[in-house]
Amino acid sequence: MFNIRKAESRDAGAITAIILPVIREGATYALDTNLSKAEALAYWIAPDKETFVAEQEGVVLGTYYMRPNQAGGGRHVCNCGYMTGAAATGRGIARRMCEHSLIHARSQGYRAMQFNFVVSTNERAVKLWQSLGFEIVGRLPAAFSHPSAGYVDAFVMYQQL
Amino acid sequence: MFNIRKAESRDAGAITAIILPVIREGATYALDTNLSKAEALAYWIAPDKETFVAEQEGVVLGTYYMRPNQAGGGRHVCNCGYMTGAAATGRGIARRMCEHSLIHARSQGYRAMQFNFVVSTNERAVKLWQSLGFEIVGRLPAAFSHPSAGYVDAFVMYQQL
Repeated sequence: MFNIRKAESRDAGAITAIILPVIREGATYALDTNLSKAEALAYWIAPDKETFVAEQEGVVLGTYYMRPNQAGGGRHVCNCGYMTGAAATGRGIARRMCEHSLIHARSQGYRAMQFNFVVSTNERAVKLWQSLGFEIVGRLPAAFSHPSAGYVDAFVMYQQL
Repeated sequence: MFNIRKAESRDAGAITAIILPVIREGATYALDTNLSKAEALAYWIAPDKETFVAEQEGVVLGTYYMRPNQAGGGRHVCNCGYMTGAAATGRGIARRMCEHSLIHARSQGYRAMQFNFVVSTNERAVKLWQSLGFEIVGRLPAAFSHPSAGYVDAFVMYQQL
């Protein structure tokens, strides 16, 4: 059984174990690679975010957050971030989390979902989001300093709900 | 004499008097229109921002901020916000502030400047930024709820430095 539910305080360790290696690698998220465990967790479960976990047989394999991408007149567009545990990649968890988030976003009254910064070298993610209905609506030239590829473009991806 | 300098604590009142009407109007910035004075000021002079004022004969006519648009691998791209006092519009103050910001951004080692959310109905701003070298690199469909125009597009604008 595969289940996606709201994160609870008891998930802190599992969430940290998933997000910290992704942050440390610095290849897909524009986050300080030196964030402490506490800072990383505080970012992922910040007060303006709803955070979910994907679990199978009680083991947390992935996590995602949702938040309004802007305030005021931009509140009807949400933003999400997804991370899958290194040992669980290739099992469709990111896809399942994104599908879940699209349903949840509609239920919350959001009218669109926006990804602000999809690193262009993360081709697997770009293709996955496209297969789930997102379009590349913007290209940010050399906006990301990749740890091995140097300066690469980032995409803005968007989907009306 | 027209002068642009770093904001100081004594500018708090003048900055608030400029930004609060723009925020209350809710037509150009995606910010909660109900922000208190203290919240508005805290947003504009947040710890991750450098804030400047444009003054003439000791009177503050405009203000802008600069911050890294992303952390980590995205830190080399800055983001700015500019506001001009209602009584001082049409005098080229926004242009002067943007020119100043481009010079300051280069001096700080930034490699690009990005505006994440330029409301498409703000045609004057769009044209001004274009005249200063920015390109529309993305269009966010119906991403902004305008107080009178309804749902309108927003632009992502970008310039490499």
